Amino acid sequence: MKSTFVSFIGSGNLAWHLAPALDNTDFAVREIYSRNPARAESLVEKLYEANVKVTLDFSDSPSRIFVIATTDEAILEIAQEIVLPEDAILVHTSGSQPLSVLGYAATPNIGVFYPLQTFTKGKLIDFRDIPLFVESENGETEKILMAMAKAVSKKVFKISSQDRKALHVAAVFASNFTNHMLFIAQDIMRENKLSFDWLKPLIAETITKSIGIDPENAQTGPAKRGDLEILDRHLEFLQHDEAVAEIYKVISQHIVDTYSE
Amino acid sequence: MKSTFVSFIGSGNLAWHLAPALDNTDFAVREIYSRNPARAESLVEKLYEANVKVTLDFSDSPSRIFVIATTDEAILEIAQEIVLPEDAILVHTSGSQPLSVLGYAATPNIGVFYPLQTFTKGKLIDFRDIPLFVESENGETEKILMAMAKAVSKKVFKISSQDRKALHVAAVFASNFTNHMLFIAQDIMRENKLSFDWLKPLIAETITKSIGIDPENAQTGPAKRGDLEILDRHLEFLQHDEAVAEIYKVISQHIVDTYSE
Repeated sequence: MKSTFVSFIGSGNLAWHLAPALDNTDFAVREIYSRNPARAESLVEKLYEANVKVTLDFSDSPSRIFVIATTDEAILEIAQEIVLPEDAILVHTSGSQPLSVLGYAATPNIGVFYPLQTFTKGKLIDFRDIPLFVESENGETEKILMAMAKAVSKKVFKISSQDRKALHVAAVFASNFTNHMLFIAQDIMRENKLSFDWLKPLIAETITKSIGIDPENAQTGPAKRGDLEILDRHLEFLQHDEAVAEIYKVISQHIVDTYSE
Repeated sequence: MKSTFVSFIGSGNLAWHLAPALDNTDFAVREIYSRNPARAESLVEKLYEANVKVTLDFSDSPSRIFVIATTDEAILEIAQEIVLPEDAILVHTSGSQPLSVLGYAATPNIGVFYPLQTFTKGKLIDFRDIPLFVESENGETEKILMAMAKAVSKKVFKISSQDRKALHVAAVFASNFTNHMLFIAQDIMRENKLSFDWLKPLIAETITKSIGIDPENAQTGPAKRGDLEILDRHLEFLQHDEAVAEIYKVISQHIVDTYSE
């Protein structure tokens, strides 16, 4: 198969993981554009034949696929400003932005290429296990994006903007909110001069069990048991922190309602 | 060291994990009492020399340590009813009950023996890695309970009722509430006919990262970025489920406030 070249707009965590993963496939990376050229330069050093781009004029680019891997807020502006070669495909990588945010781009070949994972710079993740979600209304574009997705991941799915929104909301609960529950737990431990490390075996087992037998079957605790006396005592314990007490209250109430039905 | 025998009151998940772990040590298990004799019988079959007890009269018991491993609600009544031999030590295993709930027992040797873990019947957990928290106001009792704890776990700590309460509230956030976030995520996926499996690599990585670099450094997502437009769009998406929308709102607000300070 002939190589299809790829250029990145953005050099954040996603680009740092996706560009090197693509570089070993038939979708080699040729250009990295970033508002922060030093960071684009560091990323380029990890790639075989890529160069740093300093403008959004890609009219002479060897690439066919242009991946916007920036913050959500920047996507619309980039789509309006970017100058593309003929037949170019423009995609964004956001879980929360509809395909139509690229509607102002100077190409009809637009799509979404959304990897469902949390990326941290410096921490290597095997891309083959990351679910990749592809969207396009253009058959040829979809075919090429599916091929690019399958080149890096074993788990590739077509998904509509509407379903991607549901997926993203679910991911906020599954990732951002679980992490924040751990933050509050750590905060309570810290306030009481107790070690967060003590909670780590419990956290690890909770998640293993939840993934293994499903969250519904894995639920335990005073709210699940409907033990209102303990809930009251915990709320009293948290009364110095109104916001955390409110979080305790609404989640507990929802657990009580879920399991008493 | 001479063996100190142990009897269990209760045959739930904790007893199923703790009794066999103790049985291989100098704290062999001799009796299991349960309101459900059939379950006590099954547990006894996993132990070397234990018998089923059908009453709470332990006056002729060979044991010195009596472990109440029941629901929180049953502890007080058992402490009042149980008949113990001379010098007996009575402990409960609850995270949320103070030591004083055993104050009505007919022995001055009372304590708490609290393992911080979520137990599921049938799923083996290595007890050696489970943090064990011991409390007693009686020096000799404390010494014996510490020895029993160290016989099964590498991680043994003395803790006061007040600190144990803080620990338990933190554990509710770290375990019960993280699990419920996963439940809501699964529910959203189900409602939209999407596969919960898609979220599993994200969940696993979120927790690995949170434990590894601390929840505060691991936080990502629209609330962390202060992206109010996406928060509004997600709330609109959730508007058919008022309780879940409220949970989304209070947690997001707390994340926004935490990271904008």
